[in-house]
Amino acid sequence: MSTTAAYAAHAAKAPLAPLTIQRRDPRAHDVVIDIAYCGVCHSDIHQARDEWGGGIFPMVPGHEIVGHVIALGSAATKFKIGDAVGVGCFVDSCRQCAQCHAGEEQYCDTGMTATYNARDADGAPTYGGYSTRIVVDENYVLSIPAGIALDRAAPLLCAGITTYSPMRHYGVKAGDCVAVVGLGGLGHMAVKFGVALGAKVTVLSTSESKRGDALALGAHAFAATGDAQTFKRLAGSFDFIIDSVSAPHDYNAYLSLLKVDGCMILLGVPETPSPVAAGALIMRRRKLVGSLIGGIAQTQDMLDFCAEHAIAADIEVIRMDQINDAYERMLRGDVRYRFVIDTASLRA
Amino acid sequence: MSTTAAYAAHAAKAPLAPLTIQRRDPRAHDVVIDIAYCGVCHSDIHQARDEWGGGIFPMVPGHEIVGHVIALGSAATKFKIGDAVGVGCFVDSCRQCAQCHAGEEQYCDTGMTATYNARDADGAPTYGGYSTRIVVDENYVLSIPAGIALDRAAPLLCAGITTYSPMRHYGVKAGDCVAVVGLGGLGHMAVKFGVALGAKVTVLSTSESKRGDALALGAHAFAATGDAQTFKRLAGSFDFIIDSVSAPHDYNAYLSLLKVDGCMILLGVPETPSPVAAGALIMRRRKLVGSLIGGIAQTQDMLDFCAEHAIAADIEVIRMDQINDAYERMLRGDVRYRFVIDTASLRA
Repeated sequence: MSTTAAYAAHAAKAPLAPLTIQRRDPRAHDVVIDIAYCGVCHSDIHQARDEWGGGIFPMVPGHEIVGHVIALGSAATKFKIGDAVGVGCFVDSCRQCAQCHAGEEQYCDTGMTATYNARDADGAPTYGGYSTRIVVDENYVLSIPAGIALDRAAPLLCAGITTYSPMRHYGVKAGDCVAVVGLGGLGHMAVKFGVALGAKVTVLSTSESKRGDALALGAHAFAATGDAQTFKRLAGSFDFIIDSVSAPHDYNAYLSLLKVDGCMILLGVPETPSPVAAGALIMRRRKLVGSLIGGIAQTQDMLDFCAEHAIAADIEVIRMDQINDAYERMLRGDVRYRFVIDTASLRA
Repeated sequence: MSTTAAYAAHAAKAPLAPLTIQRRDPRAHDVVIDIAYCGVCHSDIHQARDEWGGGIFPMVPGHEIVGHVIALGSAATKFKIGDAVGVGCFVDSCRQCAQCHAGEEQYCDTGMTATYNARDADGAPTYGGYSTRIVVDENYVLSIPAGIALDRAAPLLCAGITTYSPMRHYGVKAGDCVAVVGLGGLGHMAVKFGVALGAKVTVLSTSESKRGDALALGAHAFAATGDAQTFKRLAGSFDFIIDSVSAPHDYNAYLSLLKVDGCMILLGVPETPSPVAAGALIMRRRKLVGSLIGGIAQTQDMLDFCAEHAIAADIEVIRMDQINDAYERMLRGDVRYRFVIDTASLRA
């Protein structure tokens, strides 16, 4: 076991505070990673505050982890000491079911093992990336390609793959008209991927205030959804809608913006279900679909795509002890577009 | 113009009664059809009673039309006198838009011309198949293959293509697990198509009373949705759900029955939208989609498929003057599975 500095919610809704945890000694296929940066995902807040229930405390959040390999298990062959690597939302899965065999471990029949707030096969709680070190089976570790700054790579492990996966799975291609609803951690990555794929990207956001940012990120157009004319003007315009909004909103209004055979991809989970009119789907053969992060193979593909297209997250680097303030700012939507913890601040 | 015997709703909500209408003289590409049978679709009732608003009265319903060619326009080449032919839900479209070019005329940008309760390009009201004759452009006329009884072919033109089209478009294939929700005019066709495509078909219906019928139609299994255990027992079981129900029902409960990447196809339009939980779609990458009848080319493909697989609708043939009683029976769900009008009764 190795002693590791971390930050944890010691109990539900408690502010995050220092905690010393133990990481396991490396098993045969393990990789020991010295964590350099960890992105801060909105789901960290939900879980640290136990808003989804069933939280395991103390909880060390963080599933957008990048760092370097410092030790290897006796049979680990995929990485070597010093490699830049990443860990995303899960660190294991059953490896037996159809989804695991298909490389879609996020849909594992018995449930993937989440990077934190879960229990591994031995029953030990998993602890995430708000820490200086993590030990993960090599089959669940990603290679960070040269050319992507490590701090800006961290959010790719969740925000990146969450948007990239459905765009690939559902086939966003050059020339497609893609709307991105909501310009946060997910939305800003969707804009970058859409542009890189050759799509015509329009950002839809509640107010005009994000127009400048949207265009600066590469979006080809912007429309404020607070303007009632927007939904009339853009009716039937899009092949895809990437909906990253977690606040309740009217799905039918957005469905009306899709062309025939258009596809609206839900990534956010509002607290309450949203009414769907069958006619909105039937009359133009539209699709309403969901997507959950991505498998290990596709996450690697995403990272390689990012290196090839010079894509990374837009971030604000913080010290570990700024995390509670960062959570408050995220709740106000005051982050462009992802906080990333520099774990050097945990070692000081 | 040719004088044609018909039955019409003379005003919204009025019982249907005899009406003499005029059919146009054939234009260059027209086919004049002596109508033998016309199926009775639930949407006939909605429109005859103006439940969707905007009805054009007097209204001659009927869009499941089969008969024989008795005359041709000067340039019509696709059919010859005596051919058994059919007409479905529309008789024209813009012929210019992307959907028309793709043979998906049902999604025509400017709107297909419905077989009745619409206006053709000249502004004249369209009158449907509750009549002895109809004149339709040859490009919107189907060939009824030898081997399908004409009366049992009629419902294929709406109920048949409405279920066949999404099963083909979304790729139902041999070995897939397909649930059919609701065993009426649409549902009974979905069972037949699913079985013919080699799928394992389960009928889901509110009560046990339809178990025998479901199995007699060829379904491999039946489950009563009134039994709360059904949703637990069948969770994650199906690749496809064909949902033909027009009464409000809980989409989330049915979505839970889909496998990873499963697809629920809505064909019915409940009066009120149904709440959809984003998590039900996201956690297993499920799809909720709609589909509207089918294009002319695919309708012909469906008819040919029916001939090849000895598929036709299960029907109850009625006289024209039984139509008002038939409507009442349909509203009670008392039909197995489609009423078909024998138009000989209009000529007597």
